[in-house]
Amino acid sequence: MPNLLNQHLAAVDLGSNSFRMLIGRAQDSAAGVQVYAIDSLREPVRLAAGLDDKKYLSEAAQQIALQTLQRFGERLRQFHPDRVRAVATNTVRVAKNAPQFLQRAQAALGFPIEVIAGREEARLVYIGAAHSVSVVQGKRLVVDIGGGSTEFIIGQGYEPGMMESLYIGCVSMSQRFFPGNQVDETTMRAAEIAARKEIQIIAADFKRNGWNHAVGSSGTARALADMIGGSGFNPPDQPGDITLQGLRELRRTFVRAGNLNKLRMEGLKPDRVPVAAGGLAIMLGVFEELGIQSMEVTDAALRLGVLYDLLGREQSQDMREVTALQFTQRYGADAQQARRVSELALRLYAQLRPNATEADQRLLRWAAQLHEIGLSISHSAYHKHSAYIAANADMPGFSRGEQAALAQLVLTHTGKLKKLSATDLENIDLDAVLALRLAVILARNRTAVDIDGLHLRYQPAGVKLSGLRPPLDIVAPESWLKGNPLTEYSLRQEAAEWTRLNWNVALQSPS
Amino acid sequence: MPNLLNQHLAAVDLGSNSFRMLIGRAQDSAAGVQVYAIDSLREPVRLAAGLDDKKYLSEAAQQIALQTLQRFGERLRQFHPDRVRAVATNTVRVAKNAPQFLQRAQAALGFPIEVIAGREEARLVYIGAAHSVSVVQGKRLVVDIGGGSTEFIIGQGYEPGMMESLYIGCVSMSQRFFPGNQVDETTMRAAEIAARKEIQIIAADFKRNGWNHAVGSSGTARALADMIGGSGFNPPDQPGDITLQGLRELRRTFVRAGNLNKLRMEGLKPDRVPVAAGGLAIMLGVFEELGIQSMEVTDAALRLGVLYDLLGREQSQDMREVTALQFTQRYGADAQQARRVSELALRLYAQLRPNATEADQRLLRWAAQLHEIGLSISHSAYHKHSAYIAANADMPGFSRGEQAALAQLVLTHTGKLKKLSATDLENIDLDAVLALRLAVILARNRTAVDIDGLHLRYQPAGVKLSGLRPPLDIVAPESWLKGNPLTEYSLRQEAAEWTRLNWNVALQSPS
Repeated sequence: MPNLLNQHLAAVDLGSNSFRMLIGRAQDSAAGVQVYAIDSLREPVRLAAGLDDKKYLSEAAQQIALQTLQRFGERLRQFHPDRVRAVATNTVRVAKNAPQFLQRAQAALGFPIEVIAGREEARLVYIGAAHSVSVVQGKRLVVDIGGGSTEFIIGQGYEPGMMESLYIGCVSMSQRFFPGNQVDETTMRAAEIAARKEIQIIAADFKRNGWNHAVGSSGTARALADMIGGSGFNPPDQPGDITLQGLRELRRTFVRAGNLNKLRMEGLKPDRVPVAAGGLAIMLGVFEELGIQSMEVTDAALRLGVLYDLLGREQSQDMREVTALQFTQRYGADAQQARRVSELALRLYAQLRPNATEADQRLLRWAAQLHEIGLSISHSAYHKHSAYIAANADMPGFSRGEQAALAQLVLTHTGKLKKLSATDLENIDLDAVLALRLAVILARNRTAVDIDGLHLRYQPAGVKLSGLRPPLDIVAPESWLKGNPLTEYSLRQEAAEWTRLNWNVALQSPS
Repeated sequence: MPNLLNQHLAAVDLGSNSFRMLIGRAQDSAAGVQVYAIDSLREPVRLAAGLDDKKYLSEAAQQIALQTLQRFGERLRQFHPDRVRAVATNTVRVAKNAPQFLQRAQAALGFPIEVIAGREEARLVYIGAAHSVSVVQGKRLVVDIGGGSTEFIIGQGYEPGMMESLYIGCVSMSQRFFPGNQVDETTMRAAEIAARKEIQIIAADFKRNGWNHAVGSSGTARALADMIGGSGFNPPDQPGDITLQGLRELRRTFVRAGNLNKLRMEGLKPDRVPVAAGGLAIMLGVFEELGIQSMEVTDAALRLGVLYDLLGREQSQDMREVTALQFTQRYGADAQQARRVSELALRLYAQLRPNATEADQRLLRWAAQLHEIGLSISHSAYHKHSAYIAANADMPGFSRGEQAALAQLVLTHTGKLKKLSATDLENIDLDAVLALRLAVILARNRTAVDIDGLHLRYQPAGVKLSGLRPPLDIVAPESWLKGNPLTEYSLRQEAAEWTRLNWNVALQSPS
């Protein structure tokens, strides 16, 4: 196959609700290959609504679709066919006049269009989702609610396993139960029951197979998460997820509104109104039939899967390691210094928290690896810039939640601690914060640091009061401190900083 | 001389108020060399306060200074002497026991320390300021209020010309007129008169020489600007500058407070309290004697000047061009695309505003050059990331105000225009915004664009109502629009976007 690395690649997705295009660039590194988005287009074509009773696509619906494809085609004009893959899903799959439509569609786009089967769609969705959500141990369930069909996949790592496609979708469901965007208790219940009846067909097999982590892909999942998150319907520790609690609150809001045209809520975009109630009913059915409590969200799954599939490369490494490595390079961070701080921080962390999980250690290691990337923007307030990048960057393999935790650890690696709110203090891993801050102080002159004489020790006389941490000593030989006056000064300031946060930390020399 | 490029270089400044260290890295490019900060240290040693009546540095003051230098020395331990320059200014200049102190100071720091004359200090301040403030046509006045002396320089480009150093400084002035940080109308007036009497000595010569742009360097200028800006004492179009209006308002606030220890205000840091009143009195004297209305601010001037001087390279180019070029590279932006958008935007801008100044055109060109740098963070919301970088990055040659204007233009280059507030709309160059947005639309597929048939034309029938812009047509041949449906669609959306802002813009084909 041709070498597609560092080239622009395009995926076009003729979905039943919207048509989308994603242009990405594949970037290679020793550790693996990753796709970064460059450009994207989306249009709410709502093709599924153009199917008549006899499953013929109306001429009007075809016209809208063709105009959209012409516009996409203009953007792709310079692309070699090897670098473009266009796929059509359920509506074109079922349309009786699909062959005639496809001929016109391919002429409009300027590239061949593949009608893919539900299982192939499921496979691509899984690959895309696995590359864009958090890396998890064990099995992952991905649910992709489209306009005309919904895909269910259980997989592990980057490998899809069990796959099913059901004929329920947010467009068809909304048209059937919520004409004119009217929602009431009765119609909502009827729609949920209809969705559950379909899902029941596969529920037993999927539950027997089991999973550790649920992911919702597609625009429907993103829109639901935006509405739930935007309205504060979620528990505070899961702001960006779809939760059962949040879905139920959203259902009440829809029913109370009576008609979605009148509803103004954070995260509900005008072009999602006609499919919102159907999408909600299906998602409620999914949660209830499969016994899901919460779900992580990603929305470019199918298109991203198409791009990774174009590259045809197998991934084996943890995508997050690849990303962390690429980021150190991309932002020109001092890799030696990152390693130095990382090793020091992990050593100190082990003293503070001997039973830390591997996940906790990893987060600290990544924070150490990325803590200086903001220097690429400015030395002044560089920790804020590092945190801005960690919070906002496209970081394959990291979930939004992981990025938020990483960004917070990066933000607190230097400077005042009073920036931590009371809520932060409850949720953040303070041991990791302290370990990282100390490591940064100790490694400030960017040379090998000998800290054999330095260790952290809870004061033997210290009594752990409820809610307070036991007093901690930073123990360092006096001669070493004398020889390193900037370090001593910084360690004393650091101890004072923690004491201000009600954690008694002191610098001591062994007597 | 040794090749110092891409090495870490250090400047140490034993000032009369604070000791500071700046570590920078020199980056070379075809267009010139630039220094980016890597690390910095600052300690409020207040050495000038340690001089007794007979101009001897007290042992206590020396001890604080020596401890500080030891700490700086730890950070510099691995540095080759060629890469470090330490300078001492007024207090060491005048101290009778300076030789003894210097011997101990050099041992503590581990590097030789140069006591520099007022004129050398002025020269270095000018070089540093010229590399960190906005590029201006004509002459520049730099005023550097230190703890023990104040330097005045008039220069052009990177070349200092007329230079003077006066024995007035914020530490000595505060000690003399505001003991215990007490301020009242009488003492403030007395301090101002004392400052003006000194400045009168040089005022006539400096005013005869003349300047186009005034710059305040040093920590005093930064602190005054922070207090004035933080309290909203400035006119809205000069948020970050020192203005005469702002200084007078600040003076009223100080007198009203009576004692600065009790004063809590935005931008007044605890360690600046003991020198704030003296610094204000001198700055008021400078503004009044020299007839200054407003002043741009920078604060690393002396240290930055030392680093550039270490490099010993002559600059001739406009530093902003060098920066813009380096930023395109550093953030891996598509340079060809930047050029394409830039050329298109300038052509369209010329049609909208035939009398644009060179400064307006330059800003638009830089915005075009940098509009995609945020893609290095993420495709999604990349315009916000580009704007974040433009607003926060260390951009040699650009003033804060220029960076803010650049960031706003970059932010508005795509997406909704409703993000512009009413104040924005009054101040922003809407012609530049429209030109850039159109250029981005036209160049979207990253190939050469032929827009010979496209032009912008004010509707002949359009009447310019007061406060409203005359209706504008985007004129494009129908056949060209037919062949480029994505562009046509985007141009129609764009026209609608502006019409929503009450500027009637329409897409037309010539009949």
